[in-house]
Amino acid sequence: MPGLVIAPRARIFHGHEWVYGSEVKKVFGDPSPGDVITLKDFRDRPLGAAIYNPESQIIARRFSRRRQDLDADFFKRRIGQALEYRQRLALDENLCRLVWSESDGIPGVIVDRYGDHLVLQVLTLAMHQRLDLIVAALNELLTPASILLRNDSPVLRAEGLETEIRVVAGSLDGGFAVEAGGIEFEIDLLDGQKTGLYLDQLDSHAEVARLAEGKRVLDCFTNQGGFALAAAKAGASQVTAVDISGPACEATRRNAARNELDIEVIEANVFDFLKQDENEYDLIILDPPSFTRNKKTLRDAMRGYKEIHLRALKRLGKGGLLSTYCCSHHASRQEFLSNLVSASVDAKKTIRLIAEHSQRADHPVLPAIPETHYLKGFTVEVVPSR
Amino acid sequence: MPGLVIAPRARIFHGHEWVYGSEVKKVFGDPSPGDVITLKDFRDRPLGAAIYNPESQIIARRFSRRRQDLDADFFKRRIGQALEYRQRLALDENLCRLVWSESDGIPGVIVDRYGDHLVLQVLTLAMHQRLDLIVAALNELLTPASILLRNDSPVLRAEGLETEIRVVAGSLDGGFAVEAGGIEFEIDLLDGQKTGLYLDQLDSHAEVARLAEGKRVLDCFTNQGGFALAAAKAGASQVTAVDISGPACEATRRNAARNELDIEVIEANVFDFLKQDENEYDLIILDPPSFTRNKKTLRDAMRGYKEIHLRALKRLGKGGLLSTYCCSHHASRQEFLSNLVSASVDAKKTIRLIAEHSQRADHPVLPAIPETHYLKGFTVEVVPSR
Repeated sequence: MPGLVIAPRARIFHGHEWVYGSEVKKVFGDPSPGDVITLKDFRDRPLGAAIYNPESQIIARRFSRRRQDLDADFFKRRIGQALEYRQRLALDENLCRLVWSESDGIPGVIVDRYGDHLVLQVLTLAMHQRLDLIVAALNELLTPASILLRNDSPVLRAEGLETEIRVVAGSLDGGFAVEAGGIEFEIDLLDGQKTGLYLDQLDSHAEVARLAEGKRVLDCFTNQGGFALAAAKAGASQVTAVDISGPACEATRRNAARNELDIEVIEANVFDFLKQDENEYDLIILDPPSFTRNKKTLRDAMRGYKEIHLRALKRLGKGGLLSTYCCSHHASRQEFLSNLVSASVDAKKTIRLIAEHSQRADHPVLPAIPETHYLKGFTVEVVPSR
Repeated sequence: MPGLVIAPRARIFHGHEWVYGSEVKKVFGDPSPGDVITLKDFRDRPLGAAIYNPESQIIARRFSRRRQDLDADFFKRRIGQALEYRQRLALDENLCRLVWSESDGIPGVIVDRYGDHLVLQVLTLAMHQRLDLIVAALNELLTPASILLRNDSPVLRAEGLETEIRVVAGSLDGGFAVEAGGIEFEIDLLDGQKTGLYLDQLDSHAEVARLAEGKRVLDCFTNQGGFALAAAKAGASQVTAVDISGPACEATRRNAARNELDIEVIEANVFDFLKQDENEYDLIILDPPSFTRNKKTLRDAMRGYKEIHLRALKRLGKGGLLSTYCCSHHASRQEFLSNLVSASVDAKKTIRLIAEHSQRADHPVLPAIPETHYLKGFTVEVVPSR
């Protein structure tokens, strides 16, 4: 079998599953793009089986420590294990990421379930070549009403793949509703502007809602209204939700109406809104989209975070709560917390940590692959009178 | 009022509340040890009120950003706020750290409640000089059956204070039982070998117990049996508890008998035990005492962790779980996780993060004071078949 000899000190020797082009000592046996290859160390010891794409910076992704083919049996077994894992942790399987790429041992394949429908992403060349096997395995294991291939991620380009959105199994016609935490959300998987819900934040919605009763709540970057609706349902005295996107604001308004919840939705840039707004709140949520896609823009992203942290802290009264999230793995948990501390120093407020948040367990973290641990959040309280 | 001028770039300008001797630019007004002093920056701007002890490395600890005396009213207010905080978070107040030093704005004062009894630690000179005010405030706010001053921490020496254990209010005669998570524990606050329970771990006991049903469980460094008993109660098929201390093993056996729970208790050095033991387990808990008290011995401590991580991972079968804790703030959360990853690489196992653990919320974290964020834990699963 063709393969790669990996240079010493490569990340794969520290538990990672990726091989960067710069970590390859030698290519042998002339593998083709998308092939299953063998990885070896510089002493010719086998390191396992990987998928190969010389066009990508990540030239190989290991998916097994042993010899392993990507056949029908492989996909059924790995997808089955991913489903068992979610059952074992008693996760809500109705609204769930069922398969998450490296974390479930199928690099580049992501499967989300919204009720009876599946949304599939296939983001690596090797897996894209085996799309039929993946779809067949999903049909056999889950018999969904439809499977939508929703390949519109920017990472496709790095793998030399095209954007495509198409129904690959069953039928899907228009929108439907799903329930999460006692709240109904409209879902329109075919509409490009409204992606599904952010499944990774569903636990955080519940965690923050538990703190919202009787409070004046501001939800910044509300998207489909996740935090805002959960807070309103939990008995917040007043809820304001802000988003720059018109369609997101509309979706939030419709979700509020559907659930008979009363929230004020404001279409605005959150930075501008926080600069101008002079109201006091008891609980502010900051859940922005990733400000950064790479290490280079991290400094700018951190400046953005510092600014919204500072402005939000200034809008909080005594004992006020701030829940803030960062969904980029480029910023470490510690860096993100330091950013918040630095803003609290400028705001002359002492903050106390009330809760730490992370991505929901249907996005499992492999600690050896730091990229899988991307979502971090903190809820802090402004300590009254110090 | 006498005080200190703080040098630029001191940690107090980054939100910390401590002033080290090396951070003092000038002492003015000739303060006495234990006095309340004023802190000023190098431009003569006031930074707040602090307690002073020139014998300590930490020469001043700020407790207010404003002028503030340490009078009866101060203690009643701050202790009252600490109690309100725990009520607000709906913490079990029967078995609870009611006051935790800097985190509750009373540097050096720690109050634990075990049922009707309070255990008080007063670990700073200034607070020790005001012991009567603290005891009076506790009596007024909580009317406990007794208050035991249990000043036996090694940090006392750094403040020039003596060890002392004595009942300072009410009466305390011998042991009693308290309930935590449906399990009764014997408590003997006067007996030097048996301290109370580790209150900071009570949430973790419950979190791990939720994973224990039907499993073969090994609890290393069991102390009073906290994890072992919780696992047994949750339906573990078999529980083994190991501790090097004879009295701890005895206490664990008595606690097991009292709760009619069946656990095997082994008096042994955990390192030796893990080296010799050849049984397979489904869930292993590692909750050692702090291997390090300072930065210097951190490397040795990390070597110790690596060894027990490696040995524990080798004793786990497919899908096995490891819950591991570190209670030293000298090792960061990331360092501790990296240690675990490194052990998993040596053990040739892929691990998946199931849960992150932290100290219970009755030990509140002030993010600007990293020393308050000392306890970290991870539960990982050995991924079956990769």
